[in-house]
Amino acid sequence: MIANSYYGHDAHGDYDLISIGELKLEEGGVIPDCQLAVATFGELNAAKDNAIFVSTWYSGTHQIWRDAYIGPGHALDPSKYFIVVVDQIGSGLSTSPHNADGPNAEIAMSKFPNVRIGDDVVAQERLLREHFGIEQLALVVGGSMGAQQTYEWAVRFPDKVKRAAPIAGTAQNTPHDFLYTKALIEAITSDPGWAGGEYASNEDVEAGLKRHAGIWAIMGFSTEFWKQEVWRALEFDTKEAFMAGFLEPYFTVMDPGDLLCMAWKWQRGDVARHTGGDLAAALGRITATTFVMPIDEDMFFPVRDCAAEQSLIPGSELRVVDEVLGHLGLFAVAETYMPQIDRHLSELLAKPA
Amino acid sequence: MIANSYYGHDAHGDYDLISIGELKLEEGGVIPDCQLAVATFGELNAAKDNAIFVSTWYSGTHQIWRDAYIGPGHALDPSKYFIVVVDQIGSGLSTSPHNADGPNAEIAMSKFPNVRIGDDVVAQERLLREHFGIEQLALVVGGSMGAQQTYEWAVRFPDKVKRAAPIAGTAQNTPHDFLYTKALIEAITSDPGWAGGEYASNEDVEAGLKRHAGIWAIMGFSTEFWKQEVWRALEFDTKEAFMAGFLEPYFTVMDPGDLLCMAWKWQRGDVARHTGGDLAAALGRITATTFVMPIDEDMFFPVRDCAAEQSLIPGSELRVVDEVLGHLGLFAVAETYMPQIDRHLSELLAKPA
Repeated sequence: MIANSYYGHDAHGDYDLISIGELKLEEGGVIPDCQLAVATFGELNAAKDNAIFVSTWYSGTHQIWRDAYIGPGHALDPSKYFIVVVDQIGSGLSTSPHNADGPNAEIAMSKFPNVRIGDDVVAQERLLREHFGIEQLALVVGGSMGAQQTYEWAVRFPDKVKRAAPIAGTAQNTPHDFLYTKALIEAITSDPGWAGGEYASNEDVEAGLKRHAGIWAIMGFSTEFWKQEVWRALEFDTKEAFMAGFLEPYFTVMDPGDLLCMAWKWQRGDVARHTGGDLAAALGRITATTFVMPIDEDMFFPVRDCAAEQSLIPGSELRVVDEVLGHLGLFAVAETYMPQIDRHLSELLAKPA
Repeated sequence: MIANSYYGHDAHGDYDLISIGELKLEEGGVIPDCQLAVATFGELNAAKDNAIFVSTWYSGTHQIWRDAYIGPGHALDPSKYFIVVVDQIGSGLSTSPHNADGPNAEIAMSKFPNVRIGDDVVAQERLLREHFGIEQLALVVGGSMGAQQTYEWAVRFPDKVKRAAPIAGTAQNTPHDFLYTKALIEAITSDPGWAGGEYASNEDVEAGLKRHAGIWAIMGFSTEFWKQEVWRALEFDTKEAFMAGFLEPYFTVMDPGDLLCMAWKWQRGDVARHTGGDLAAALGRITATTFVMPIDEDMFFPVRDCAAEQSLIPGSELRVVDEVLGHLGLFAVAETYMPQIDRHLSELLAKPA
């Protein structure tokens, strides 16, 4: 392991590290002691039927959900629901390449095994059942890679998921998305400082992480975000200042190996692994009441890809979110964003399931 | 200079290298002996009113115009028109970083000066006037960076351009496009083999050129191109084979410094330089009958950016090209592409001007 002060309570507030023990992985590897970073909000009721599960996206943690999505006045209201956010494996808070030590020392850094979306969901289900006694979820929700996990939950554990809200993500990763993620990966691994994953500090890979941010800039935000200079709302004077003051430092504090772990997982998200490659059959398994919620300006999870999947989910609805930022509208900085998310999630939670 | 066998008659067929002498550049540099690669088709009539000028795009040359766009049955018909295609400065055929020698030896490789779209158009106008005696063009047409040059022609020399057809490009480069090109540039310059522009061979920069191809893959082709596996029409079995057999070798034979010269130019295309930054005033100068022709699936010259400019051009029309490939539909490999281009250009050429 190596030290990285970003991944701690100073930057991420309260969360618990909970071990679920050994986790055998789909690709054949093993995490000897899988620790999940867990943040909870609200109280589990006696019937244990008010639990909401939230999964995290690439580079994101429970922090953004806590700060923007969860709270009084939001659909994810802790006065009504027991909301559990679990940071994904490789997030830097849960077991990840950079922090693997103790019983996980053998899988530190470049030795970290490949992890799949299904591994995360298996780990999360075990955590909820064994640690909280939760057998059913009123809602599973997540954005981007969190949407991949949401779909995986709904297909893998249909009896446990009453409602599902995948936001800005797909059930089966697209080839374009695979190539996008490949470019992100190569921006990092082409940095000589990456050293095959055995860098001494994330700072050694700063140039690669900045190039990685540069590719996010063109795909994560929409053409209109840049044309309309929406970044001015964040109090920057130029797009260069916005890059240097926001998007680049957002990524350069992170661990490159952790990002690569998540990117590999993202590239291979596919619920059709449960049905021999038959996506319609996999999505047909879903019994959750499902709102599919793409962002209209998303450059890499475009509405039509999400709509094509939605059409295969029994009884589902397509709820398009208008958001000029594009995919990174998930950051919830636009005033018009959260009201839409809250409206859709509130309507979904009000539906019988 | 360094040798690169790609830039010659074997790969590009017939063309003439014509010197227009010294070219003073907008940014302050000088090309001591500016040589332009020129391919012509058809005959100039006695009235010298049947000339069509074609400019080239990033990484492209007259070759693609000759092979796909020009010929009997096309709007660009050599039996009616005298068609002049000039490869842009930095194209590798005209004066470029890698081939600068003799009187241009002082600007070879990393010493090559910054060139702007306006420099190309000034050079092209001089060539047409001094070498061919052409004072007026029945049509100026080009795609992508060729569209930038087409707009520059129409704004800079309104009396000389009777008709204009910018395809898949803008008159003023957008901030998103600037960032996209920045990512392309950094894919090359981050390769240690680039060596500050003083590599011994383009092969030294193969890894960077491949990453550069990888970024083209996600922005140059549309999400639908990849989803529909359109590359199968080119007789590849997997997207990886298509990348390794088509898009990567397309770029790895090229000179990285030449690409960087063009990329710098592309980033700064802006006809509003003629009017103190007032785009409406610049486009308002255009007297050419103009068809603005964006590609519907273009990821970085989206229809709305082109339509916004078209609305500022007096008497112009928006002619959207349906093309699932996206921007690289310009390669004209789809059967449905050239019929649309030919129809629009034929209708434009039939208009009184």
